[in-house]
Amino acid sequence: MTPVLHGYWRSSAAYRVRIALNLKGIDHRQVSHDLRTGAQTAPDYRRLAPQGLVPALEIEGETLTQSLAILEWLEEAHPEPPLLPEGAIARAQVRSMAAAVACDIHPLNNLRVLKALKHDLGAPQSSIDSWVGRWIGEGFAALEETVARHGDGFCFGDRPTIADCCLIPQIYNARRFDIDLGAFPRLVAVDARCATIDAFARAAPDRQPDADGAAS
Amino acid sequence: MTPVLHGYWRSSAAYRVRIALNLKGIDHRQVSHDLRTGAQTAPDYRRLAPQGLVPALEIEGETLTQSLAILEWLEEAHPEPPLLPEGAIARAQVRSMAAAVACDIHPLNNLRVLKALKHDLGAPQSSIDSWVGRWIGEGFAALEETVARHGDGFCFGDRPTIADCCLIPQIYNARRFDIDLGAFPRLVAVDARCATIDAFARAAPDRQPDADGAAS
Repeated sequence: MTPVLHGYWRSSAAYRVRIALNLKGIDHRQVSHDLRTGAQTAPDYRRLAPQGLVPALEIEGETLTQSLAILEWLEEAHPEPPLLPEGAIARAQVRSMAAAVACDIHPLNNLRVLKALKHDLGAPQSSIDSWVGRWIGEGFAALEETVARHGDGFCFGDRPTIADCCLIPQIYNARRFDIDLGAFPRLVAVDARCATIDAFARAAPDRQPDADGAAS
Repeated sequence: MTPVLHGYWRSSAAYRVRIALNLKGIDHRQVSHDLRTGAQTAPDYRRLAPQGLVPALEIEGETLTQSLAILEWLEEAHPEPPLLPEGAIARAQVRSMAAAVACDIHPLNNLRVLKALKHDLGAPQSSIDSWVGRWIGEGFAALEETVARHGDGFCFGDRPTIADCCLIPQIYNARRFDIDLGAFPRLVAVDARCATIDAFARAAPDRQPDADGAAS
């Protein structure tokens, strides 16, 4: 059975998984859940994915959730081409970069959190913009240093890893929020390099079947 | 050389690593960075850990950061006793539970974020309390369902995994914020079971050398 990726074109967590599926050469079908209308919280989808979040990957009669867990599953079940380097320490360094995005940057800037800042806390748009900029800026500053230590064209070494699968969607998000990336030349260079790779290019939000050119 | 764990008694991300080090039987030394005074952002520590966050684990002349990456490193470098089950799908289910805590609950409730809500957004304490309760409540509701599907005394099956390493510190946090756990009997039962295991008990915040009984 063809794997089914539940996602949304602008979900950066789903974008991570799209990149990895493409890098691994795994044919898949996409099902879109419109995050703007809360479609991902519908009971039918929650039976598959109790958190009511995207992405989820249906494979072999099971549904896997959480993008980092799905990336690790892809690496174990489809080891070629590898998205983690050899050696436990090197693998930890790559996973740390991926987690820096997935645990410390993205969770503070995704749609459900921005909605909560606006509606639950009544934060004005200017404060929300500063909030987004702060977490992306602090996170990217650390990643710029880490990529300087370990990168050679990509976040780690000279091949794409799960760190790039996480970074590229976060850079897309940063641009969407008009974050100045001038202080992060290495991250911008990794992004430019990845954009030349078909697996990354085909995963881009604007190229997804559910992309809405009119979305704000 | 004895591994050095950089942490803080109340950091729930450091708490995850303490549990795993104890379960693996790895002797280690602790260095405390007082998160209340921002000690973790000092230049000397940032050279080791560019994000200026705890935990970090110094081993074999390298410094590993990000608790999930450290847990995976521990599993690869010290496989016994295993903290992930056999089988790629089962491993993905455990990692998904760990990530549900580490990516969707904890990042929204840690000290740096609560400080930002208060000082940058000017949120009153009542709104901050609701914010904390919302993310813990939504996350725990999904985990309660996932543990019902997969747990048998622990989050997954009948042995501790990295999911328990993440859940137990989050339950500690929830209690600290006076969150009502009545709707999550399975999570509370896992917590009670883990509390009977020495590796978990010794990792508890109140038993750390830097624990401050007078802290708010």
